Amino acid sequence: MKVRTQMMYDMETLLRKVFKQIRNEINEILDKELSRNEFTILRILSEQGPKKVTEFAPILEVSASHITAVTDALVEKEWITRIRSKEDRRIIRIHITEAGEKVLQHFNEKKTEYFFKRFDCYTDAELATLIELFSKLDKKR
Amino acid sequence: MKVRTQMMYDMETLLRKVFKQIRNEINEILDKELSRNEFTILRILSEQGPKKVTEFAPILEVSASHITAVTDALVEKEWITRIRSKEDRRIIRIHITEAGEKVLQHFNEKKTEYFFKRFDCYTDAELATLIELFSKLDKKR
Repeated sequence: MKVRTQMMYDMETLLRKVFKQIRNEINEILDKELSRNEFTILRILSEQGPKKVTEFAPILEVSASHITAVTDALVEKEWITRIRSKEDRRIIRIHITEAGEKVLQHFNEKKTEYFFKRFDCYTDAELATLIELFSKLDKKR
Repeated sequence: MKVRTQMMYDMETLLRKVFKQIRNEINEILDKELSRNEFTILRILSEQGPKKVTEFAPILEVSASHITAVTDALVEKEWITRIRSKEDRRIIRIHITEAGEKVLQHFNEKKTEYFFKRFDCYTDAELATLIELFSKLDKKR
């Protein structure tokens, strides 16, 4: 049991360090052009379609006022647009624009490139093992 | 190469999903009693000793004004205290209190308990493999 305890501490420390490194490195890739939250909003709009601004607060775990600032910045850059619902004129949803889709695609490619390089340390067999083991941690399989 | 590309996409998606699940689950453990940033500040003060408030902004990747709000809350709870430097009276550092250390220890135990349960899906051998593979991703070994 001693060994297991030590392994768990090692795993916890490793996860924290690696998560932080990867997050910082991706932030550097996005840096200057768009924030992580801007990127996430574009990604979700592209994947899931138009949404109300208020729907993003729980997803991004930030305050409603912060979301408003982020969406204002995205509207300013013309990457998203606010459209009033035809069914219910009281509802306004944000939609990703064509320019927004292009920016998203550009950064997705840069991110994929980054992950390819970052995971270069693995053979195909190791990567397959890592995916298999890591899949066990995903509760929403 | 097609296989490798697909594996990389799988890995990227998995990492994002699992990181998010674990982060949310830990937030739930901390919830109500202290925020993640409060927890991180206590942990760093305990591990590294007293620090100036401004030193936390880059570590936590948040604004200086947000750090001030967080440290105010921690002082209010009497988990940290502000002490003026004897060498240079212009400098004020925050120190963790005995009560702060107790809170930190309590949540560290809860977090360790959580990780034990969360990684229960692995045999010792699988956990060892996961640590070995994941270590390769840590750039600051």
